[in-house]
Amino acid sequence: MGTSAFFSAASLRELVAGALDEDLGRGDITSTACIAAEIRGSADFMSREALVLCGLPLAKEVFLQVDPELRFEVFAYEGERCEANTKIASVSGAARSILMGERVALNFLQRLSGVATLTRRFVDAARSGGRAKITDTRKTTPGLRAFERYAVRCGGGINHRYDLSSAVLIKDNHIAAAGGLKAAVEGARRFASHTMKIECEVDHLDQLEEALACGVDIVLLDNFDDAQLAEAVRINAGRALLEASGGVQLARVASIAATGVDVISVGALTHSAPAVDIGLDWSASAP
Amino acid sequence: MGTSAFFSAASLRELVAGALDEDLGRGDITSTACIAAEIRGSADFMSREALVLCGLPLAKEVFLQVDPELRFEVFAYEGERCEANTKIASVSGAARSILMGERVALNFLQRLSGVATLTRRFVDAARSGGRAKITDTRKTTPGLRAFERYAVRCGGGINHRYDLSSAVLIKDNHIAAAGGLKAAVEGARRFASHTMKIECEVDHLDQLEEALACGVDIVLLDNFDDAQLAEAVRINAGRALLEASGGVQLARVASIAATGVDVISVGALTHSAPAVDIGLDWSASAP
Amino acid sequence: MGTSAFFSAASLRELVAGALDEDLGRGDITSTACIAAEIRGSADFMSREALVLCGLPLAKEVFLQVDPELRFEVFAYEGERCEANTKIASVSGAARSILMGERVALNFLQRLSGVATLTRRFVDAARSGGRAKITDTRKTTPGLRAFERYAVRCGGGINHRYDLSSAVLIKDNHIAAAGGLKAAVEGARRFASHTMKIECEVDHLDQLEEALACGVDIVLLDNFDDAQLAEAVRINAGRALLEASGGVQLARVASIAATGVDVISVGALTHSAPAVDIGLDWSASAP
Amino acid sequence: MGTSAFFSAASLRELVAGALDEDLGRGDITSTACIAAEIRGSADFMSREALVLCGLPLAKEVFLQVDPELRFEVFAYEGERCEANTKIASVSGAARSILMGERVALNFLQRLSGVATLTRRFVDAARSGGRAKITDTRKTTPGLRAFERYAVRCGGGINHRYDLSSAVLIKDNHIAAAGGLKAAVEGARRFASHTMKIECEVDHLDQLEEALACGVDIVLLDNFDDAQLAEAVRINAGRALLEASGGVQLARVASIAATGVDVISVGALTHSAPAVDIGLDWSASAP
Amino acid sequence: MGTSAFFSAASLRELVAGALDEDLGRGDITSTACIAAEIRGSADFMSREALVLCGLPLAKEVFLQVDPELRFEVFAYEGERCEANTKIASVSGAARSILMGERVALNFLQRLSGVATLTRRFVDAARSGGRAKITDTRKTTPGLRAFERYAVRCGGGINHRYDLSSAVLIKDNHIAAAGGLKAAVEGARRFASHTMKIECEVDHLDQLEEALACGVDIVLLDNFDDAQLAEAVRINAGRALLEASGGVQLARVASIAATGVDVISVGALTHSAPAVDIGLDWSASAP
Amino acid sequence: MGTSAFFSAASLRELVAGALDEDLGRGDITSTACIAAEIRGSADFMSREALVLCGLPLAKEVFLQVDPELRFEVFAYEGERCEANTKIASVSGAARSILMGERVALNFLQRLSGVATLTRRFVDAARSGGRAKITDTRKTTPGLRAFERYAVRCGGGINHRYDLSSAVLIKDNHIAAAGGLKAAVEGARRFASHTMKIECEVDHLDQLEEALACGVDIVLLDNFDDAQLAEAVRINAGRALLEASGGVQLARVASIAATGVDVISVGALTHSAPAVDIGLDWSASAP
Repeated sequence: MGTSAFFSAASLRELVAGALDEDLGRGDITSTACIAAEIRGSADFMSREALVLCGLPLAKEVFLQVDPELRFEVFAYEGERCEANTKIASVSGAARSILMGERVALNFLQRLSGVATLTRRFVDAARSGGRAKITDTRKTTPGLRAFERYAVRCGGGINHRYDLSSAVLIKDNHIAAAGGLKAAVEGARRFASHTMKIECEVDHLDQLEEALACGVDIVLLDNFDDAQLAEAVRINAGRALLEASGGVQLARVASIAATGVDVISVGALTHSAPAVDIGLDWSASAP
Repeated sequence: MGTSAFFSAASLRELVAGALDEDLGRGDITSTACIAAEIRGSADFMSREALVLCGLPLAKEVFLQVDPELRFEVFAYEGERCEANTKIASVSGAARSILMGERVALNFLQRLSGVATLTRRFVDAARSGGRAKITDTRKTTPGLRAFERYAVRCGGGINHRYDLSSAVLIKDNHIAAAGGLKAAVEGARRFASHTMKIECEVDHLDQLEEALACGVDIVLLDNFDDAQLAEAVRINAGRALLEASGGVQLARVASIAATGVDVISVGALTHSAPAVDIGLDWSASAP
Repeated sequence: MGTSAFFSAASLRELVAGALDEDLGRGDITSTACIAAEIRGSADFMSREALVLCGLPLAKEVFLQVDPELRFEVFAYEGERCEANTKIASVSGAARSILMGERVALNFLQRLSGVATLTRRFVDAARSGGRAKITDTRKTTPGLRAFERYAVRCGGGINHRYDLSSAVLIKDNHIAAAGGLKAAVEGARRFASHTMKIECEVDHLDQLEEALACGVDIVLLDNFDDAQLAEAVRINAGRALLEASGGVQLARVASIAATGVDVISVGALTHSAPAVDIGLDWSASAP
Repeated sequence: MGTSAFFSAASLRELVAGALDEDLGRGDITSTACIAAEIRGSADFMSREALVLCGLPLAKEVFLQVDPELRFEVFAYEGERCEANTKIASVSGAARSILMGERVALNFLQRLSGVATLTRRFVDAARSGGRAKITDTRKTTPGLRAFERYAVRCGGGINHRYDLSSAVLIKDNHIAAAGGLKAAVEGARRFASHTMKIECEVDHLDQLEEALACGVDIVLLDNFDDAQLAEAVRINAGRALLEASGGVQLARVASIAATGVDVISVGALTHSAPAVDIGLDWSASAP
Repeated sequence: MGTSAFFSAASLRELVAGALDEDLGRGDITSTACIAAEIRGSADFMSREALVLCGLPLAKEVFLQVDPELRFEVFAYEGERCEANTKIASVSGAARSILMGERVALNFLQRLSGVATLTRRFVDAARSGGRAKITDTRKTTPGLRAFERYAVRCGGGINHRYDLSSAVLIKDNHIAAAGGLKAAVEGARRFASHTMKIECEVDHLDQLEEALACGVDIVLLDNFDDAQLAEAVRINAGRALLEASGGVQLARVASIAATGVDVISVGALTHSAPAVDIGLDWSASAP
Repeated sequence: MGTSAFFSAASLRELVAGALDEDLGRGDITSTACIAAEIRGSADFMSREALVLCGLPLAKEVFLQVDPELRFEVFAYEGERCEANTKIASVSGAARSILMGERVALNFLQRLSGVATLTRRFVDAARSGGRAKITDTRKTTPGLRAFERYAVRCGGGINHRYDLSSAVLIKDNHIAAAGGLKAAVEGARRFASHTMKIECEVDHLDQLEEALACGVDIVLLDNFDDAQLAEAVRINAGRALLEASGGVQLARVASIAATGVDVISVGALTHSAPAVDIGLDWSASAP
């Protein structure tokens, strides 16, 4: 899976450099004191539970920044469903260097694979109900948005607008302040680039027709129940993209998808995904 | 609660600036297009579930960076146990500015309060069993370590070493590479500053006496069951601090504390705490 | 005119700081040597030719960074058409500080007003022919894109996509590499966020129907003559936005607009606008 | 032509990285979506008009930062006079990577070659009149000064002082504030390093002798007509370097040079040079 | 001698880049003007007095940043005692590049070897008196702490706490503000991580027993004479580490060590070490 | 004494921020643990030996960055000769904040006053012999050049060229590589800006006439004895500035000055000035 449209090589380097700086501080006292520079070893990243894999480019970058002579080999691909006890990757070289990078590499892998794994559950549930796609939100970890969005992709989801400048999304407060939905959409159309879509939040079914009449590209149906969603699909009749939103739980995803909406956005993908368990086991030639 | 020994004003500013940059991108198209610059409003941060609060200094900084003329008022203190529907803080000023900062402020508050809330549960459980303290690990979110450690404090926990340079922690791999526990401890004592403590991991009860004989300051008892922990406490007889570690679940914390160990370290505090639900409600004079 | 959706306060500060660093180097030897610190003065920014004004926020920031005690007053608004010899703004305070900021402030004002002035000429010409809007391109000065786009707005133009991540724009090379226009559009629709528009370049009239059949949001008509543009407008029949492009000269803008296209993109707005002449005249109380 | 005394490798890298960041944003959606990673191609930079070439090191750096495996070949040298349709350089490798760097590389090449081309016109005109050299001013594009000065060199010009710390240049305001030309020069001589030259602006012929009597190294003759310049040359009699300045147009350069002044400074070289037309044509094996 | 626990590769790069930027400014005018790019040479770093060597990794980094094709060879090791006229290292390649890096490389080598050389004198003196180790303080050159601490190690010393967050050191002002030594130690124990040592300053012998009773890990004996130090050693009876401090001169080190204290801290190691004399001599094939 | 031409406010802020970051690390554990936030105090900076003062702007910036509510008062001026036990400045406010900034403020004051004090000794010695000025060299502490040059000024010295781009200084290696002194000077004159002076090193008296014939602005007389210097002054007859250089000791400065040279450059001013002793004494209301 290509990564070029998700994050630049420069931002990858910078994120990893910051994480290493944070974890190494003034240097790894223990490894330097206890392990001679010439001792070499090899260790395997092993899944300790079933998971969808994400984060190998970060783990690799961690080790190469610690020591460009380490060798990082990959045995699974980004987005792959791995069973427990799968050998994901291995790293070999100076034992001291491997130990210096271990924790940071695991922190990235466990966290991003956690996001991918949770996303995959939502995507699978949605597919069992209909053709709706699962998308993320702006409820991401500060500093990690580009990478968490990438993890959502690895889990089979799609991405919502990147930030407040990527698309227009008119919410209830904007409508109130603009003096009505129509005024808000017109303001947006006047101001935004002609290359930008306009999405509008709708809190009640009776706002839907007004939004569609204004020619918005996407309607966000906030906190609608399944019956309301189905009715919205009927009213829309293909005019705009429909997005369901609002505290969506895994258990309800299939029935939402069955209503015929196009997209379901889920904040929990990035704000509450638990880390998955991945370990680093030293192989025979380890220290 | 003072914050000065947890993070500098500069690192707070830098983290918030990065998060705003990530979320604002080239600018908030929607608010600029739909909301006139002179419209003012006021909004309240409300807990939507019971939680331990953490993150107000970051939320405040978010709004002040967006617009130095916003007013941020606080109604609860860092580390406070808040019931659902508690008014935590409020922000007032230009409606446009409030909307620009809303998501980033919530992302910080929900995430750090999530860590504080989970920590509090572990701390309460431990206290029901004994005098052991709950401590965090280096399994933190890359880029947020200082702030997650602060959240652990707000939840009643204590902090482990900050990074690989803050203390010596000799693990099994170090022992293997050094040619034995004694050699490793001696290496560390020779190399580390005289101001630094030495902690040593022990995987079996029969290693404990050797570690104590070397005069280590702290012994990390990795994956010991309660009976083994109790036996370790007996053998130690107050010579070193004892730390229990290894996939500790909330359900087991009380019984671990009952064994008499000094410290229990819990990775989940920072790697798997779900976000708590906090909302921003516009008050009467809102747009 | 509001600036909040064009550039952040932080990026403004950073750009100005860099420009001052570039021009002050190790410090202004001459002013420090020749002018006593306590000498005060006042100077006026005067247009020396007719122009559309742009850049006051940058000029103000320049002087405040040099010396927070300088006073910068504004007598015209961003986007205003100023005749020659209009007093645009004034600055007063320590003479030494004014001299240190003069050149950098003028460099910003002359350059951005140059872009705004040229844009205004294109916009006026287009209006004389039809309803087409004038838009910029990615042919901007490296490091100044946000500010040149803002200048285009001040001159009455609209902005195209900010960068390669803001919208999909499929060009001939993409079509060739994807194996056809339809494959390219489908690839884009699969990959891009549902919040993103898809624009497609068309080099010949006979490609137009295929692009429209694929449901693209915008068609870029590259190097079409006026007759071809008019025919494209007829074929399109309102299905997509139509954008004319390709070495557009001021003399031809009216006739392009008369064909009925929606948007005309002009690289010269940002890559070849000459600086306009603005001077700084010391008033009576000057040194 | 060597570049080492014009800009450091680090500043080159930083400028290019900023320009790429500005243009790629969150990543090139279109190329990633439409072009498979393994498709390769080759493209040629072609002059579309006669020009003096400048900017190849920047174009090369652009492509290497996008993708270190791209190959950039050069067929002309910096400062070379190229006819229209000259093949300047070529780039080959992954088609996706070439497309990602194309616009930024062209932005640099067109802009800097624009400066070099305009400079060359002034230099040629000056040579037709006398031995005067053409020099730039501090009227450069913020952020690009080092590179525009380099372009001026490529066009055959020389460089004035880099910034306010490189040399003393006493203007009318300094003289007024210091209480006279003599006092200003003495102040400068006391304060500036003994390694620094002192230049003094003179607005009328009758100030010239006073400046020369003070032993200034360079006299800037501001807005003198040709007769006045010739008289200044006579009075000076080789004592100081003489620099003519003040809205110098191309048409007048030869006659200014014929007066015998040493240097002619021209702001337009950097503040109003139009971009020259350079294109990137895919060769046979392109996508 | 390994350097990994003293400074990261990134901080080394950053320090050297800053120093080069400071010394090269806009570029080396002289070398570029006078020396053709293709002229090559070779030069040797020679000690001009007896010294303890420190700084080779910095000198190497200087030349590699200036020109990655320079070759830097090392003939002595970090921490080695070199006689006058020892060939320490050599550099070869483009003469221009060698000249550009010469001054910065020497600045690092002379300064850090100065610290190492002075430290070695203190260490040797201490050894002649007893087993006390020599340690540095926080009186380091701003921006160079990590590297000066490394130089102290190269000279045979040990390092004190890195910064205010590495260990607790309770001084007289802390005691006064806390309301007594016991309250201060208890506060520290409550607040600091369990992995952190507590050191306490004692200004009079009669405070010592109180500090020891509180269980502090280290006692700093400030401005004690030798008799008082010896008495402190007797009272301590091995309970805490004892550190002597306070304007320690070289002449007194042996007698302090003879009292039996564990550590002697010396500010002069880093705040007043004179540079040692090292030169760069061009060898036969030089320009 | 004004500082504006020595360092920018931005570089001052950055240097101090880096120094504080270096010394505070993750935060001041001790002060936070032992001293309640509301305790206030006041402390005086006292000279403990006779010195020439330098560094107050840095000390002030240190405290304001730690805590903007601290009050820093100044009782002496930069460059003032202070006797031992002079009250230089005072700081008052939160005791915790004062303690956090104390060490860094002292590190700057002691070091820069050390440079100013040593410079003053050289300047006084030179004045006793003649009219020669004392100047610094590029042998400065990496990262502190601007500030050490400022300290040299405070001690009565003047500054040499800032860096390799500020002036041309042709040394023996440049002459050898250029194929002779004349060729080197001509190369420099062709390449350097017309605003730049040319200095040339001369190692023997018989090179002097050649250098003067080439019209160099300054001649550096390297390692000349007093008789040779006097002869050089005679030969020069006022044509160029003459600078004596080469391991100049304090004892020899007066006799060098008596030869009639214009400038004496002294590396030791910045590479070997010992720190002067300055203390911070808490006044009555201290903690």
